[in-house]
Amino acid sequence: MVKSEKISIRTRGNGHIVDITEQVGQAVSRTGVSEGAVVVFHIGSTGGITTTEYEPGLANYDIEAAFERIAPASARYEHEETWHDDNGHSHVRAAVLGPSLTVPIIEGRLTLGTWQQIVLVDFDTRTRTRTVVCQVIGE
Amino acid sequence: MVKSEKISIRTRGNGHIVDITEQVGQAVSRTGVSEGAVVVFHIGSTGGITTTEYEPGLANYDIEAAFERIAPASARYEHEETWHDDNGHSHVRAAVLGPSLTVPIIEGRLTLGTWQQIVLVDFDTRTRTRTVVCQVIGE
Amino acid sequence: MVKSEKISIRTRGNGHIVDITEQVGQAVSRTGVSEGAVVVFHIGSTGGITTTEYEPGLANYDIEAAFERIAPASARYEHEETWHDDNGHSHVRAAVLGPSLTVPIIEGRLTLGTWQQIVLVDFDTRTRTRTVVCQVIGE
Repeated sequence: MVKSEKISIRTRGNGHIVDITEQVGQAVSRTGVSEGAVVVFHIGSTGGITTTEYEPGLANYDIEAAFERIAPASARYEHEETWHDDNGHSHVRAAVLGPSLTVPIIEGRLTLGTWQQIVLVDFDTRTRTRTVVCQVIGE
Repeated sequence: MVKSEKISIRTRGNGHIVDITEQVGQAVSRTGVSEGAVVVFHIGSTGGITTTEYEPGLANYDIEAAFERIAPASARYEHEETWHDDNGHSHVRAAVLGPSLTVPIIEGRLTLGTWQQIVLVDFDTRTRTRTVVCQVIGE
Repeated sequence: MVKSEKISIRTRGNGHIVDITEQVGQAVSRTGVSEGAVVVFHIGSTGGITTTEYEPGLANYDIEAAFERIAPASARYEHEETWHDDNGHSHVRAAVLGPSLTVPIIEGRLTLGTWQQIVLVDFDTRTRTRTVVCQVIGE
């Protein structure tokens, strides 16, 4: 069985990390799948999906600091020269992080750790409404 | 239903980013799968798969600059000392990026954004012919 | 068909990289799946999964050096201020690497390259016993 749902998430951009675990879990529950996996896929090239312990220190400061080392907001980007844009670093960070994550489902539950949440990271430089596909494959 | 196809991609190495969206999309079309997902997997330890807006600034300069911060080509690598090789940074960058990506298929189409392409990044230090597995699971 | 197995891996932490290819391959073999994919998922927010050539230079030095650039162990982390903890960098590195990997199975075998192994990277600051879910979807 394959069932897909799109969820909408309002973000502030600029590295805003949103905990989407509950929304993904609800999408999984609605399918009734007991054994399978959910593909969590962010549509767009300036955001990504990963897991982390969702607490303010990591979510609001520490993860951002790492991406600032990987692709500083103030560096020079060819992307910005070409498109007269300001989000070259957003694209680069998103490419490094990746847009998708696959989480197993066992006995109807996501196999996450207690302090492991599914998060959307929006690297763009403005508020956005993001679309994330939750696709459940299983039985 | 599970169907797999291997595609070959000629690259220049040294961070060469190749847009493989069309080849992946054609592989998906040939399976006739309407609802499912495609696993895009790079065989080998000096390349990886991600998504980005495929435009020359990002593809030829900006993403490379980030990986140069993560694993500079000129740094000292134990891998190179051991194997008298020059691609320690290639291996490290590939491990950070990861070899695979899973993209949902809805109504026979990849759920990519308009400016979101599937790309192969070849970090090796020479031209290569790369093999990417496109595996479609669905119905 | 969907079949899941949990495997336990003893690690030293501090960037310890463990080759889990054989354990994943055995889990796949036990399912009898010939065509499909295996989702390899690390439970917890201070470790991750990727592939690399498993040789001492990369596994013991070079990959660690890259993560030290991304999130230095000695940097200041809000996470540590809040929780009086010492593993802020572990969480950040794990979020960048990601907890999961999907590898296609063709004719009963993982489609890995000859010098491409599946590895668990434990970024935590102490020895741990880690749990990795191997979930096989296929036929």
